[in-house]
Amino acid sequence: MSNFTAADGRHIYETDRSHVFHSWSAQDKVTPLPVSHGEGATFYDYDGNAYLDFSSQLVNLNLGHQHPRLVKSIQDQAAKLATIQPAFANDARSELARLLTEAAPGNLSHVFFTNGGADANEHAVRMARLHTGRKKIMSAYRSYHGATATAISLTGDPRRWPNDPGDASVLHFFGPYAYRSPFWSETPEQESERALAHLENQIILEGAGTISAIIIETVVGTNGILVPPPGYLPGVRALCDKYGILYIADEVMAGFGRTGTMFAIENFGVEPDLITFAKGVNSGYVPLGGIIISPEIVDTFREKAYPGGLTYSGHPLACAVGVETFAVFAEEKILERTQDLGQRVVRPRLEAMKEKHDCVGEVRGLGLFWGIELVRDEETREPLVPFNPSPEENQPMLEFAAACRRSGLWPFTHFNRVHVAPPLIISEEDLNRGLDIIDAALDELDAYATPTLQAASISS
Amino acid sequence: MSNFTAADGRHIYETDRSHVFHSWSAQDKVTPLPVSHGEGATFYDYDGNAYLDFSSQLVNLNLGHQHPRLVKSIQDQAAKLATIQPAFANDARSELARLLTEAAPGNLSHVFFTNGGADANEHAVRMARLHTGRKKIMSAYRSYHGATATAISLTGDPRRWPNDPGDASVLHFFGPYAYRSPFWSETPEQESERALAHLENQIILEGAGTISAIIIETVVGTNGILVPPPGYLPGVRALCDKYGILYIADEVMAGFGRTGTMFAIENFGVEPDLITFAKGVNSGYVPLGGIIISPEIVDTFREKAYPGGLTYSGHPLACAVGVETFAVFAEEKILERTQDLGQRVVRPRLEAMKEKHDCVGEVRGLGLFWGIELVRDEETREPLVPFNPSPEENQPMLEFAAACRRSGLWPFTHFNRVHVAPPLIISEEDLNRGLDIIDAALDELDAYATPTLQAASISS
Ligand SMILES: Cc1ncc(COP(=O)(O)O)c(C=O)c1O
Ligand SMILES: Cc1ncc(COP(=O)(O)O)c(C=O)c1O
Repeated sequence: MSNFTAADGRHIYETDRSHVFHSWSAQDKVTPLPVSHGEGATFYDYDGNAYLDFSSQLVNLNLGHQHPRLVKSIQDQAAKLATIQPAFANDARSELARLLTEAAPGNLSHVFFTNGGADANEHAVRMARLHTGRKKIMSAYRSYHGATATAISLTGDPRRWPNDPGDASVLHFFGPYAYRSPFWSETPEQESERALAHLENQIILEGAGTISAIIIETVVGTNGILVPPPGYLPGVRALCDKYGILYIADEVMAGFGRTGTMFAIENFGVEPDLITFAKGVNSGYVPLGGIIISPEIVDTFREKAYPGGLTYSGHPLACAVGVETFAVFAEEKILERTQDLGQRVVRPRLEAMKEKHDCVGEVRGLGLFWGIELVRDEETREPLVPFNPSPEENQPMLEFAAACRRSGLWPFTHFNRVHVAPPLIISEEDLNRGLDIIDAALDELDAYATPTLQAASISS
Repeated sequence: MSNFTAADGRHIYETDRSHVFHSWSAQDKVTPLPVSHGEGATFYDYDGNAYLDFSSQLVNLNLGHQHPRLVKSIQDQAAKLATIQPAFANDARSELARLLTEAAPGNLSHVFFTNGGADANEHAVRMARLHTGRKKIMSAYRSYHGATATAISLTGDPRRWPNDPGDASVLHFFGPYAYRSPFWSETPEQESERALAHLENQIILEGAGTISAIIIETVVGTNGILVPPPGYLPGVRALCDKYGILYIADEVMAGFGRTGTMFAIENFGVEPDLITFAKGVNSGYVPLGGIIISPEIVDTFREKAYPGGLTYSGHPLACAVGVETFAVFAEEKILERTQDLGQRVVRPRLEAMKEKHDCVGEVRGLGLFWGIELVRDEETREPLVPFNPSPEENQPMLEFAAACRRSGLWPFTHFNRVHVAPPLIISEEDLNRGLDIIDAALDELDAYATPTLQAASISS
């Protein structure tokens, strides 16, 4: 550990700036921090600074940095058989498929493996289209589904805009968002009811018989940690059944324990036709994604070929870490501890922050998947920074993030929100320490918000 | 090695059939062979059978099965840092980007990493569109570019058909194919000239100012091992320059030594604007792909954000194996041995097979990347099985493949062709043994072909 030097860090940085093209960025504006190593919920730079990872990298590192059992599973599988093409049978691949179908809700029976979340959604859409013989797909505003052509078209956030029109048969609807209701509703129950009425209205006006599937992030991730209100997802399932539309649950970010259940959809009692996954399936130690498929859809492709594939489908190295992930979940009681820490520690602490800070409009989430929505005014709910802020408009959030980093926390911020999504193996002590840092950094943001009279907030 | 049992193989097979959804297949018609382990150019099943791998899995395993240095590079990187998100700087990622730009022809300067070949092509197309401000992309018939929405639209083979229309701004042109000229030409020079005239004609009629890029497999892989005739690729480059169109070289299959040079394009003296890669970059030991980018295109995204990304861009584990691949190429003189074995062993032996077998119409290739085109009649060139054969029509090829496998060779066949694409580390002895097996299996296919008078063939 001690053989990482600041000079190494500078060399890595310079080489990166000369030769690495960065995602989602203006290349002259990125200043990527060289990371030397990581352990559990913490990673380190070459100057010896430690960062508590409150975003689990890109919310994929559910079992934390360098989990010894996951590292060993890579090393063992590499020694045994690093790779084999998809047309063969492989023990790690078979076993992970079995574990996934066993863990999934309902009677989903088969798994098609991909390399990540975007291609999982691409292939899920293809299956839905060919199974139903219909072309259109509905996805929600305020969503992210990946960056290949169909996946970015499914996406309901500004990352899609410069890529329009990609897949012209995608259309967007409004999902529920009680705090900023697009349906003028006043309670979560009303939000759910109206969101379903809106969705059905749009289905009817688009032509129910032209729509193959609805894809929904079970809990919307990057676009807001939007936990669906009671009845919403079962209502979507009922609409799908009514109109012969398939239900695709995108669990790329919300799956694998993030919400305290293996699949987030278990919180809502719904059985999708297709579940897409990636990230948490093996904490991203090796690129992996995939789709868990209903027997009815498999049946469509029993005699007729499925027209899709990829060189690394069911990669043994990636699958081996997935198999080990299931073992670690059981042994370390990951779901139980995630529920416990979420309810016992995070919820009350975030609720206290809401009480305390003028700039906190709402806190919401479940498991270890929380969002803090920041406002200029708790009354009007004006966002602290606007939707899709320019770098100038985003200044307060950049200051907040810098303050967190100075205190040893790597935060996840998006628009006017801070997300709390640490590795599920985080210690209670680190979790509290991280929340302390966020709490302190929010103090500075309070300067941007209209003070609320303490008395008013108590009496409400 | 001895602890692999037939019972294990059966269990893996059963679990696969119950739970794994296979690429490009009718699920009830696949019978995936369980593979227990591999070494160098050979892999083994659970019944103890050995197969000489003449297709390098999906033509990705350039350094063979379980290369000790590649295995160790995975194990070491796993111990050090299995993963880190794309926004950070990482030593393996920086170093591989540097090595790739250094190895690439021309002055390409940056690398955007993806998970595989399909997403490399997706992002290359996006860069081309945003750089030029034009939407259309031209790609060739008889090509494969991947299975996500834009990549499958680029594809010029039947795998695209059930997925049409995907990306509606892709259009296809005819590339050169001297043996079955789409231009009624009689020599390779004429083929080159006419293919260029055809391409320019189509550019003009589509509207040169509407076309962002032309994407070409430098040597067409799965669709025929079509080596471009003299002058063709430089001619395409000249057309691109004339009309302000970008040149994207898809080197996913042809790159990384397969043709005897690091990038296949080096054989043709052309400098593309974008090179896409995957497979051989790390032999597929960990999923990896990417794009090598010209400085002009990077400039477009210096101040303006590039609107694309993926969770596992520049995955450290994958990049570490890429870095080690460069070291192994140098140390084991992979390029030199590939050129030598290709010219000294494969070419004369395949030419002898053409002389000997009535069913062999043409042999072509370079490096360790060869195709044998099978015909019913050397005169009429009628293919031994038709384009995109039904399973019934494909019977002769299935028999051929089965005969090879019985003799311990795993062949690559596609339509009426047999490809020879073993790992580049194959021993000369194994290479000859594999060619012996193919030679013997071709004997049986001769029954389908019109005999050529020995005298005629000698006098010609
Ligand atoms: C909900 C969701 N779907 C899909 C994706 C795309 O996954 P990938 O980046 O692996 O392509 C993401 C990535 O953040 C995601 O959060
Ligand atoms: C030339 C070419 N391009 C792209 C691809 C797609 O690569 P992947 O299967 O990794 O998506 C392939 C795969 O065979 C290929 O041969």
